[in-house]
Amino acid sequence: MDATELDVLEANAAFYRAFEARHAAAMARVWAEHHPVVCIHPGWDVLAGRDQVLASWRSILESGNAPDISCSLAEAHVLGDVAFVTCHEVVPGGRLAATNVFAREGRAWRMVHHQATPIAPGQTRPLPPAGQPN
Amino acid sequence: MDATELDVLEANAAFYRAFEARHAAAMARVWAEHHPVVCIHPGWDVLAGRDQVLASWRSILESGNAPDISCSLAEAHVLGDVAFVTCHEVVPGGRLAATNVFAREGRAWRMVHHQATPIAPGQTRPLPPAGQPN
Repeated sequence: MDATELDVLEANAAFYRAFEARHAAAMARVWAEHHPVVCIHPGWDVLAGRDQVLASWRSILESGNAPDISCSLAEAHVLGDVAFVTCHEVVPGGRLAATNVFAREGRAWRMVHHQATPIAPGQTRPLPPAGQPN
Repeated sequence: MDATELDVLEANAAFYRAFEARHAAAMARVWAEHHPVVCIHPGWDVLAGRDQVLASWRSILESGNAPDISCSLAEAHVLGDVAFVTCHEVVPGGRLAATNVFAREGRAWRMVHHQATPIAPGQTRPLPPAGQPN
């Protein structure tokens, strides 16, 4: 894995740390400020634009109903100044397959798109052994 | 809308034409040959690699169970040599929110990622009037 992939995976990890901590300000820092941003929450219609996307995250994170979540099986795919990560979101009762797209803003990788889709029971790969970060 | 966005939307339309026609060879032409490709079908785990992704499409398109599908509300977001489209997939009984990511290969925009997530009933925007392409 090269340094760029590690940087992208760190940006991805920051997203899940903000989610797990229910920290709306940290979540806002994850998302791009200069690129267009879009988000598709499970079951929701497409949300477009930083204001609408961040409002949705504030609503989710501050509702008291945000699930405990962790990220596993993350893989980064770098395409120049854009990269996308696929991963599993492990939540109580199941897993989702997620895509997180990042673009460079200056030296940082910022999120421009997030989408998560529930995986049907029985369709999921095994998780790595406990203690491994990915 | 600029010429690049139109090119990206045409690549997106070619994907749905191949899907609607159950045309596995046309579907194969949509997907990138030189970039990494990933696909998340609804309810499935992540599929990675051109061989695995195209095999999944052959299985779906040749099964006789592929749904009638059309694309609506497509919007292109261009980030240099990468672009992503969000749209609705209209299928019998409902709609899905989809993301299709494209990257340039030579002069063509080729698909590197597809993900579709069912939208919960009551959460969908109205479709445009019949006769409008988008």
